[in-house]
Amino acid sequence: MSNDNETRVIVNCLPLTDEERARFLAAAPGIPQHFVGEPDQRGRMVWKAVVPKELRAAATAVIGNIPAADAPDYPNLEWIQTWSAGVDAYTKPGVLAEGVKVTSASGAYGQTVSEHLFALMWTLMKHLPAYRDQQATGTWADQGRAMSPDGATVLVIGAGDIGSHFARLASAVGAHVIGVRRNAAKLADGFESMHGFDELDALLPAADVVVSIVPSTPQTHHLINADRLALMKPGAILLNAGRGDAIDPDALLEALRARRIAGAGLDVTEPEPLPAGHPLWREPNCVITPHVAGGMHLKATEDRIIAIALENVVNYVAGRELRNRRR
Amino acid sequence: MSNDNETRVIVNCLPLTDEERARFLAAAPGIPQHFVGEPDQRGRMVWKAVVPKELRAAATAVIGNIPAADAPDYPNLEWIQTWSAGVDAYTKPGVLAEGVKVTSASGAYGQTVSEHLFALMWTLMKHLPAYRDQQATGTWADQGRAMSPDGATVLVIGAGDIGSHFARLASAVGAHVIGVRRNAAKLADGFESMHGFDELDALLPAADVVVSIVPSTPQTHHLINADRLALMKPGAILLNAGRGDAIDPDALLEALRARRIAGAGLDVTEPEPLPAGHPLWREPNCVITPHVAGGMHLKATEDRIIAIALENVVNYVAGRELRNRRR
Repeated sequence: MSNDNETRVIVNCLPLTDEERARFLAAAPGIPQHFVGEPDQRGRMVWKAVVPKELRAAATAVIGNIPAADAPDYPNLEWIQTWSAGVDAYTKPGVLAEGVKVTSASGAYGQTVSEHLFALMWTLMKHLPAYRDQQATGTWADQGRAMSPDGATVLVIGAGDIGSHFARLASAVGAHVIGVRRNAAKLADGFESMHGFDELDALLPAADVVVSIVPSTPQTHHLINADRLALMKPGAILLNAGRGDAIDPDALLEALRARRIAGAGLDVTEPEPLPAGHPLWREPNCVITPHVAGGMHLKATEDRIIAIALENVVNYVAGRELRNRRR
Repeated sequence: MSNDNETRVIVNCLPLTDEERARFLAAAPGIPQHFVGEPDQRGRMVWKAVVPKELRAAATAVIGNIPAADAPDYPNLEWIQTWSAGVDAYTKPGVLAEGVKVTSASGAYGQTVSEHLFALMWTLMKHLPAYRDQQATGTWADQGRAMSPDGATVLVIGAGDIGSHFARLASAVGAHVIGVRRNAAKLADGFESMHGFDELDALLPAADVVVSIVPSTPQTHHLINADRLALMKPGAILLNAGRGDAIDPDALLEALRARRIAGAGLDVTEPEPLPAGHPLWREPNCVITPHVAGGMHLKATEDRIIAIALENVVNYVAGRELRNRRR
């Protein structure tokens, strides 16, 4: 593969510092690398890839989430490295030519998403949303018994990078963390046990916290419906940072109003964005954040994306297997 | 001491279940124990001790926070076991006769107070108060870069039971935790290093999170003043669950308004309760909870208080050294 290097051209859309560019240059000596990222995007919560038209035809590798619709402009593309964890836009049939490799930034978002979920859990356990609401009227009133994760049972649905990171956080503060994933035989760090989706209904009644981190698939649409909400403990907390449609919003609203569960923390919703008049916004025990668990909300995420891309540039040049290969 | 048992009478104000009463009876066979606690206080955030007048004269031991003003009604008192961590009301000169022992429930509150502080830290790090405020208008808007405790420097002022518990929580999620206490030679679990108050000003500029858990003494009055707030990082978070007057509220308000620090989380205030019109209530980056970190907000606290009292009843009867002796 390394003899291909004579014709290779890498277009790098990452918003790199000069020092980081130097590291990419050193990683692929002799191969043209075009750095088209705007360094001032650094610190923005979402990055945008803009590749000048004249570079597209020559590019054999692109680092960055170019618009999938532009794919025909890249006839020589061999590999695309995304800065997102999801790569659905590029792996859909017909988007990329046969043989084009796709690698993701999976692993870069586990910390930011799991920490955001963890914060949602703590804020609900200690009634901080209710105390925040009291500030508007200067009300000094005790909201009563709080919850603790210490000794609690936490059920994580979706046990990939994010789920495992969350499991480690929750177990570090005393929780018993149980996982549900498609392949129950695949263990993950932080979990006491792993189960298949066929066991979900049997596990729900024991959980003090239920966390959904499943991707959007036909199988996960309204995974948490009225029946499953009814299986949960009255004191339990439901969190979602996977895809909004994993929870039936009408069933959730009804469960919260009837106090069949204690609270919900949603970073993703159905629909999304949640319309201004939607009743979930004003539900006292529902905390909503606008899909901010991921993205570039932590500097560490940027650093990890760049590290993954750099590692794969080295692999690309050496003709080695690429990391995080999704296609 | 055990020959005194013939004259001993224990008045127990704990709101015990029948099963717990049986354990106390078994712990002090042959000694009269009067159980005057009301079991329905269980689950209330504050317990009240009400001892019938006719029992006071005979009581040699009291378990519970009786009004200090009633102390003269207990001429035979040898020992009082509080359910509070603080015992100032009983150790003040003149309150109790010479020789009366006082033991506290220190150790029972470390979990509840430190977890509440931890929740305040997470909610501020992830801008959850701002997102909560957005819910009132159904606003879906990104608040930008969040903070992480991973790799952050956390400075805990006051490194007793609560401080150490908080240090363990923070270090479990990746923080470097540094302590300040009167006796810097006394190490505590969870801390990377321990320092004296003389080093506080040198440590403040490095801290991402500053936590005050100091008791109210002349030395700690306005410990965090304008000068010390000016030493903090612009991105730092200040938390207080010790005593309200450890922070100068006017200086804090000014620092928050000028964005000289990123946020504050206060479970205690000066004055307390904070009056409805106080400007700190409406300060966007100030989270206020109404002195609820402690008390009986966790069931585990009740269980620990009862366990400490039971252990000391055994010690009392056996003539052994009492645990948590404060006088």
